[in-house]
Amino acid sequence: MREPVDAAPPTMDDIHAAARRLHDVAVRTPLLRSPALDRASGRRSLIKPECLQRTGSFKFRGAYNAVARIPAAERSRGVVAFSSGNHAQGVAAAAGLFDLPATIVMPADAPQIKQDNTRGYGATLRLYDRYREQREAIGAAIQADSGADLIRPFDDSRVMAGQGTVGLEIVEQATALGVRPDAVLVCCGGGGLVGGTALAVCDAWPDCAVYAVEPAGFDDTVRSLRAGTILANAPGARSICDALLSASPGRLTFEVNSRLLAGGLVVSDDEVRAAMAFAFRWLKLVVEPGGAVALTALLQDRLPRPEDGGPETVVVVLSGGNVDPGLFADIVTA
Amino acid sequence: MREPVDAAPPTMDDIHAAARRLHDVAVRTPLLRSPALDRASGRRSLIKPECLQRTGSFKFRGAYNAVARIPAAERSRGVVAFSSGNHAQGVAAAAGLFDLPATIVMPADAPQIKQDNTRGYGATLRLYDRYREQREAIGAAIQADSGADLIRPFDDSRVMAGQGTVGLEIVEQATALGVRPDAVLVCCGGGGLVGGTALAVCDAWPDCAVYAVEPAGFDDTVRSLRAGTILANAPGARSICDALLSASPGRLTFEVNSRLLAGGLVVSDDEVRAAMAFAFRWLKLVVEPGGAVALTALLQDRLPRPEDGGPETVVVVLSGGNVDPGLFADIVTA
Repeated sequence: MREPVDAAPPTMDDIHAAARRLHDVAVRTPLLRSPALDRASGRRSLIKPECLQRTGSFKFRGAYNAVARIPAAERSRGVVAFSSGNHAQGVAAAAGLFDLPATIVMPADAPQIKQDNTRGYGATLRLYDRYREQREAIGAAIQADSGADLIRPFDDSRVMAGQGTVGLEIVEQATALGVRPDAVLVCCGGGGLVGGTALAVCDAWPDCAVYAVEPAGFDDTVRSLRAGTILANAPGARSICDALLSASPGRLTFEVNSRLLAGGLVVSDDEVRAAMAFAFRWLKLVVEPGGAVALTALLQDRLPRPEDGGPETVVVVLSGGNVDPGLFADIVTA
Repeated sequence: MREPVDAAPPTMDDIHAAARRLHDVAVRTPLLRSPALDRASGRRSLIKPECLQRTGSFKFRGAYNAVARIPAAERSRGVVAFSSGNHAQGVAAAAGLFDLPATIVMPADAPQIKQDNTRGYGATLRLYDRYREQREAIGAAIQADSGADLIRPFDDSRVMAGQGTVGLEIVEQATALGVRPDAVLVCCGGGGLVGGTALAVCDAWPDCAVYAVEPAGFDDTVRSLRAGTILANAPGARSICDALLSASPGRLTFEVNSRLLAGGLVVSDDEVRAAMAFAFRWLKLVVEPGGAVALTALLQDRLPRPEDGGPETVVVVLSGGNVDPGLFADIVTA
């Protein structure tokens, strides 16, 4: 098995290069104002809705950047990825744009919409049992057989550089609006999005506080940040945030996040449901559970209030919108 | 009863002035690309999602511009409006920002979310029976009693100028993207949004084809355009597009639309449901039935195909997202 491409986290140059690669294929998602969210949160709040991204989540950015960096001579061997769904769709769509074969190792209980969409982008699915099989082992075996490039969901410098373009756009768009945020709240599974975003945001605004937000039971990054070392989640935990169920922080992502993040916040599934209903009613955005945790932390006032010295201007990243219709219907009619 | 303010349609100067008034209070909604919509429509498609606007629809623009233009000495008399809901919320929110009393005459069968939100912005509701009472008469009586300024939902030059800022933004944003659309599809009730948008779009791009899109049974503007004279809808028609149920084109709106529009398109309620489900699944936007008719016309291929000389680059306006959760749940799980 080859070593992962790039043993070090991405630099700002890598993130800028990713932005150039993505320029014509990714959606430059807007940075939205919402008077309704300002009122509900009691702060000036800006929304970065990556649910509007190609494939319905930010994952396309990192996946496309990784596929684009495979040497041309090796591309015909294809790519393999393991993913709860959004990274799968990102890799499948990116491979499709390069006309490469893609095999996706996906938990059998991933939302049907994510399975259907991944097949729709032309990938082959290998389903597995999330609680009994190791996706890393399955992916490594496929890689060994075919010579395919393994695109890890977060602990891959190419992927983290792609996700970092979210941070780059936040900086550019906030600057264009004449706004300088005090804090940025980012959904966190393995930590690639928050790490990439922190690299770009803290480069431009060193005093901006970037937070990882995780669902209860999967607060591995939050606890690892506090402990100063990588900790795993207890086995058997469950959450509706299917996009954020990784076992522990990655080596590269933790290296970045332990250096740059201001801290971590944890929210419950019930709080996530309320935030999704808020997004439906007031923001008119379809957000999946894992995509809503940063918004949840804002609405649940997990940060100190502005009158107590807490952040006055906050960016929240809504990281994805690939939610099963039945679950969404339950949540908005509850 | 006073004459309506301004007996002539707005000029480009009026639309630019409205844009300046709205600058700090309205959301500058993005002009979104969507590879999924490009694929589904077979054209380069850009989305102007006014569901992301303050109050959940474009109506805030016209309402705010109208309230802002009431002479300061007359403002304390307040405002009155009749509306199926979105104009109501726009007027209520605008009046709230100026700290004026607002009375809204609303059909008793308007979606509960629109009634609740209108009260939430601080307005007083006067409910009426859509099929037995005349909202114009009720509004005029309130106006006569209180001296309040009557803000018509579309046949008011101040309102049309505000809606025209949608067109102004489309021109600015498409130009920034290096794109020049061949066609713009706009949802049409009384014709204020499509008229205002056409004024700005045709001023910049005289050969761009702007279309009004209406629901079956409420195709008064489409038939009036063909006949060259104002025609009304047959009484008793029903549609899920509650935002678009006006009886006939306005005098001012028809004056503009008969001069500038390329034509009109009609879609069915079932087609609208499918477009709303598409927007949920692929665009991750919450769109109400009346807000989805332009998207519906695009998805249903109501325009000639590009290979037959039809438009290659199309902008669709999604005009609002204030839909009852139960109806939305039914549509996305169908």
